Amino acid sequence: WSQEELLLFDDVLTWSGVSAATPTEEMNGAGNLMDFLDEPFPDVGTYEDFHTIDWLREKSRDTDRHRKITSKSKESMWELIKSLLDAWSGWVVMLLIGLLSGTLAGVIDLAVDWMTDLKEGVCLSAFWYSHEQCCWTSNETTFDDRDKCPQWQKWAELMTGHAEGAGAYVLNYFLYVLWALLFSFLAVSLVRVFAPYACGSGIPEIKTILSGFIIRGYLGKWTLLIKTVTLVLAVSSGLSLGKEGPLVHVACCCGNLFCSLFSKYSKNEGKRREVLSAAAAAGVSVAFGAPIGGVLFSLEEVSYYFPLKTLWRSFFAALVAAFTLRSINPFGNSRLVLFYVEYHTPWYMAELVPFILLGVFGGLWGTLFIRANIAWCRRRKTTQLGKYPVLEVIAVTGITAVLAYPNPYTRRSTSELISELFNDCGALESSQLCDYINNPNMSRPVDDIPDRPAGPGVYNALWQLALALIFKIVITIFTFGMKIPSGLFIPSMAVGAIAGRIVGIAVEQMAYHHHDWIIFKNWCRPGADCVTPGLYAMVGAAACLGGVTRMTVSLVVIMFELTGGLEYIVPLMAAAVTSKWVADAFGKEGIYESHIQLNGYPYLDVRDEFTHRTLATDVMRPRRNDPPLAVLTQDSTTVEDVETLIKDTDYNGFPVVVSRESERLIGFVQRRDLTLAIKNARQKQDGVVSSSVVYFTEDAPQLLASNPQPLKLRRILNLSPFTVTDHTPMETVVDIFRKLGLRQCLVTRSGRLLGIITKKDVLRHMAQMMNQDPESIMFN
Amino acid sequence: WSQEELLLFDDVLTWSGVSAATPTEEMNGAGNLMDFLDEPFPDVGTYEDFHTIDWLREKSRDTDRHRKITSKSKESMWELIKSLLDAWSGWVVMLLIGLLSGTLAGVIDLAVDWMTDLKEGVCLSAFWYSHEQCCWTSNETTFDDRDKCPQWQKWAELMTGHAEGAGAYVLNYFLYVLWALLFSFLAVSLVRVFAPYACGSGIPEIKTILSGFIIRGYLGKWTLLIKTVTLVLAVSSGLSLGKEGPLVHVACCCGNLFCSLFSKYSKNEGKRREVLSAAAAAGVSVAFGAPIGGVLFSLEEVSYYFPLKTLWRSFFAALVAAFTLRSINPFGNSRLVLFYVEYHTPWYMAELVPFILLGVFGGLWGTLFIRANIAWCRRRKTTQLGKYPVLEVIAVTGITAVLAYPNPYTRRSTSELISELFNDCGALESSQLCDYINNPNMSRPVDDIPDRPAGPGVYNALWQLALALIFKIVITIFTFGMKIPSGLFIPSMAVGAIAGRIVGIAVEQMAYHHHDWIIFKNWCRPGADCVTPGLYAMVGAAACLGGVTRMTVSLVVIMFELTGGLEYIVPLMAAAVTSKWVADAFGKEGIYESHIQLNGYPYLDVRDEFTHRTLATDVMRPRRNDPPLAVLTQDSTTVEDVETLIKDTDYNGFPVVVSRESERLIGFVQRRDLTLAIKNARQKQDGVVSSSVVYFTEDAPQLLASNPQPLKLRRILNLSPFTVTDHTPMETVVDIFRKLGLRQCLVTRSGRLLGIITKKDVLRHMAQMMNQDPESIMFN
Repeated sequence: WSQEELLLFDDVLTWSGVSAATPTEEMNGAGNLMDFLDEPFPDVGTYEDFHTIDWLREKSRDTDRHRKITSKSKESMWELIKSLLDAWSGWVVMLLIGLLSGTLAGVIDLAVDWMTDLKEGVCLSAFWYSHEQCCWTSNETTFDDRDKCPQWQKWAELMTGHAEGAGAYVLNYFLYVLWALLFSFLAVSLVRVFAPYACGSGIPEIKTILSGFIIRGYLGKWTLLIKTVTLVLAVSSGLSLGKEGPLVHVACCCGNLFCSLFSKYSKNEGKRREVLSAAAAAGVSVAFGAPIGGVLFSLEEVSYYFPLKTLWRSFFAALVAAFTLRSINPFGNSRLVLFYVEYHTPWYMAELVPFILLGVFGGLWGTLFIRANIAWCRRRKTTQLGKYPVLEVIAVTGITAVLAYPNPYTRRSTSELISELFNDCGALESSQLCDYINNPNMSRPVDDIPDRPAGPGVYNALWQLALALIFKIVITIFTFGMKIPSGLFIPSMAVGAIAGRIVGIAVEQMAYHHHDWIIFKNWCRPGADCVTPGLYAMVGAAACLGGVTRMTVSLVVIMFELTGGLEYIVPLMAAAVTSKWVADAFGKEGIYESHIQLNGYPYLDVRDEFTHRTLATDVMRPRRNDPPLAVLTQDSTTVEDVETLIKDTDYNGFPVVVSRESERLIGFVQRRDLTLAIKNARQKQDGVVSSSVVYFTEDAPQLLASNPQPLKLRRILNLSPFTVTDHTPMETVVDIFRKLGLRQCLVTRSGRLLGIITKKDVLRHMAQMMNQDPESIMFN
Repeated sequence: WSQEELLLFDDVLTWSGVSAATPTEEMNGAGNLMDFLDEPFPDVGTYEDFHTIDWLREKSRDTDRHRKITSKSKESMWELIKSLLDAWSGWVVMLLIGLLSGTLAGVIDLAVDWMTDLKEGVCLSAFWYSHEQCCWTSNETTFDDRDKCPQWQKWAELMTGHAEGAGAYVLNYFLYVLWALLFSFLAVSLVRVFAPYACGSGIPEIKTILSGFIIRGYLGKWTLLIKTVTLVLAVSSGLSLGKEGPLVHVACCCGNLFCSLFSKYSKNEGKRREVLSAAAAAGVSVAFGAPIGGVLFSLEEVSYYFPLKTLWRSFFAALVAAFTLRSINPFGNSRLVLFYVEYHTPWYMAELVPFILLGVFGGLWGTLFIRANIAWCRRRKTTQLGKYPVLEVIAVTGITAVLAYPNPYTRRSTSELISELFNDCGALESSQLCDYINNPNMSRPVDDIPDRPAGPGVYNALWQLALALIFKIVITIFTFGMKIPSGLFIPSMAVGAIAGRIVGIAVEQMAYHHHDWIIFKNWCRPGADCVTPGLYAMVGAAACLGGVTRMTVSLVVIMFELTGGLEYIVPLMAAAVTSKWVADAFGKEGIYESHIQLNGYPYLDVRDEFTHRTLATDVMRPRRNDPPLAVLTQDSTTVEDVETLIKDTDYNGFPVVVSRESERLIGFVQRRDLTLAIKNARQKQDGVVSSSVVYFTEDAPQLLASNPQPLKLRRILNLSPFTVTDHTPMETVVDIFRKLGLRQCLVTRSGRLLGIITKKDVLRHMAQMMNQDPESIMFN
């Protein structure tokens, strides 16, 4: 299982990072060492699994590659074409990502639609039609009648011939639960057997990967396939989860897949991450039909390194994905999402009060959800519970299905629920929520209906919605984090939409019955259409989503793209801001950061402000009573000494100093390079024996013939290791690590090497300063 | 004049930057030195004019301030309230910026509207009404008749009683030119006398300021006032310029103004720049009625340091500004801009060909404009021409007015022109551009008119538009850069819109007359409404704006917000991408970067990729044959030596080493601090004389009584100067300077100090590597 596997990195990644070999050195040098240094381990790539990449080094490598291609391009026509292809490959990758993720999103939408309906019944004219498609060509006029078209048969009707009655209800109920259990069992089994990384929403891991961590296979082809299939199964099973987060993961898998087509991206972990950032934008774009929101989500929420070039390309990928999805048109309404809405009535200043109250609710829900979910996930990790993931999924699905069926608002898919809650009640609407008592004399146009008293259906719906709200709140806490693909955008939005709709109806009825109250007097005269309960649902959804994820701009922009008008930005923003402030008052971390911490990923959040007064000297290793730093000298270490050092320690690299006395730093050498170089020299270079002296200087002295042949290793030495002085404030060090994407940094005082700080030391120190037990939180 | 003044920094800013004093040191220390170090020069602030700020230092200072407030807040209720106020001040500033810049934009719009019409006539019922407002209440039904309402009188009619005839035309012509000359004379005189910084668009300077440069007074109250007034005058005078760029400057002035209310922002240049970034977003938001586009513009185009917190706040400021402007409702259409449009017909795949051609045109226009404008501006700077700015403005205004009046498309304001070109021809439209030959049997609804043959009015309009196009292209080149406020968004868009409309009408007529051509066959049957010339105008405008400014995402988003639909993003994007590629093929720099280079501002563009193979050692000073680096030693320099060094050199700071022999770096000391410390010690501290030894060590040795009192200066020593090794590739150094916002960086080898690299050295080196003469381009 992924979590347990991921924890391995703690044992692998020791406090000494791997150095950045100077690329200019690598390129300039020509010699027998270069042969294998270019391609050190053919299959493994440059970094080991569960290690952190060095951004500066990746950037240098790409510049070198670029330089090479540019200088070659002047040589021949063929090279020129190759260089042009190389320059265009970024756009090609974006196009492919957009096409594939748009297509996958469309296929997922269609499949979910069909399988969700399959739990209730089947289409006789063509079994692969969903309920809506089945009744599409039916002759009935009203929406309500059309829902009951004869081609679509519920299971009980099909099996017993009776559509109504207690027996039919029980049979339908039983089959609904059975299908749900089947789907979720399939989902969890597929995940367990074929692709353990396919579980969860994937966003915490993608954030970590984009920040420079390597998790091999997390974005692989296998994960892509299994996540797509199991996502359909999981959503169809009726569990309280959404497809939005996993779609981001799926899009990133597509990105990773297409990276392998071009060596520019497949061989450079930094460039690869630029593509993945854009893929994340494409994922959100298709999840919400919001290309601009998707780009901002990628920028605000998931990306770490986001240069302007990536912004432009992300936008392109997001647009291509959105248009691909629109050509597939999975909902038959030429919209990208089920819950696109357009409102026609304006909002009034006084309504800001309930909107802000919804914001407070969203913030509280966010806090409650994060705390409860993290507590439950921690329990899952630490107790026996985690050993039975299949059983857990089955149990939760069973409970969900049994409790969900009796309530019409939980029985249907969550997207449909949200769609109904967002919608304004037109004159022809037949749903229970629109059961208002119409004025018989009403002769207004369809779009502009005045406020009306609520009928019995609305009161009934209110009770059912209240029960649905409690149910959703409780079950989502236990659902998110199970070993199946699960997003929490949709459940969070559903909670907010239910609460919002309830508040909206309450305000509407209050306004109708008390036109003379001072707050309603100015804007809500009798016969006016002044309160839109659907807008409250949307505001509530934004507030709850904001409370859980702490998104801000991207949230408002996504909602703006869903409503298609600047008109409602102020209510949405008021709710989003309130929700963020309320939630932040209880804890700064959103659900993704909390899961990153829970799983102990080495993620250096750009948003955490480090405000403590510690200095580099307080953080660096070795500590006061530790053994001294393992260093090499430039001209007095023998091959045997080096081999012993490599054997005795597990550090990923070693600083090289002039001499042990002066401790003046000249460079940093990677453990891997050192091992390879010595192995190679022992095999191929005559006269290199255990007592040979290793030279990191420019010229090895001419020795007597009796002395063993020296081993010159300057080529593998990184001559520009990053250094800070021991007096550097840690806030500056943290800033440097963040902005330059370092793996490690050497600490000096007056030119003397004192110690080393790795990314992990920084993370541990930050956790310590936040008064948390560092070992248990960051690296459990 | 600003340019000449700005060049001063070249003489002021020497190659050795000012160091970043360790804030922890500053805060921890307590002693007589601290008294004046807190507020070194009461009025001047921390940095000198035309100097670069140190981002890391500003950040540290803010963290310290924050730490202080947090720890104090636990002491008393009052301090707690103060800390809350401090936390909220950012939002308050944003609110105020939004309100003020929205209001100013509204006032400017109203005033421009009135004064533009004043050139042609006056409203008799109330002279402060514009033409449209004057005829608002008129009884005429068609737009055309309403334009000629009796309350509005042209000057000739008012003065001679004759509305028609050659005499009236000549008189109107004469008065039009006279008013234009009066307005522009007033504008240039006000700028010249009161606020030289108010000229130009301001965006190049704001980019430079946001990247960390200090230009005092550029965002001052005086500039704000004069720029607002002269912007109205300049736009009203009918010159080929727009208000969009200057509005960004105005908004930034508002931002700077409100910064001074809170010491958090007024005393920290880094925090101030966060506010200014948000203000720029608010400026674009009101200029185009595009809040999201504004935020992206700020992010993509002008900002340098844009943390996520700023993104959110920018969005808030942009929204407040947009809503303030909408409440003022300057155009009476409850839209924020004159040229908001909604199209009703879709576009077809085949239309991408003309759209891409428009993109090519936009790219060519961008290249032509940038080259010609820069050449002209350089001529202005280097020849006698620059000495007569008032005359230049008068001359250009005269030529513009004389040439513009006869052509109805150039006579009106450019925004109105763009608005008409963007608009689709409805059935009731009376403009010349909509003079189509209607089918007498036509009984279609108003919105959906089939393609019709063009009437004589359209052909006439085409000729006039072609002339207007040539006129706009030529005159804009000479207008942008004069000593009056001038934006180039509107003229660029006008050029594109004219070209686009011409192409649009051509395609439309081709489709009408050749329904049977293979390209039209599939989508353009007789009687169908298949080509929207207004959309071509919009695509052309986007292409030309993109070619000139090289905006990408923000451009598309602004256009998207102007049309209000995802539908047209693909045409806009196709044109924007083509235009950028074509323009980039001729030169990477947009108009703003070109002007930054022309004026020699020290701007380190985040987008320039540095791909050369040079090392830090190739760039650092001192050069091979230069005198050695001026350094201080930690315990062997006397006060007199220091004073001599300060007198003989003009470096802004000095590295401190252990001894001249070992050259091991221990820190960096600022010239200003050193001067102040010695002055203070000489005055207040007994026994400090010229032969006193200056100690930078932790403890000064106990000396004999006969020796003069030592001077301990460790407190002003920055113990964490930034260092790189001499082997560090310059691409890494450039990256470090950019991302960390450094002023200077010391170069070492094996712990020995070798030299120093300042931001200016980096810029000069980058210019050199681009095969340009560095002195003439970057620092002329």
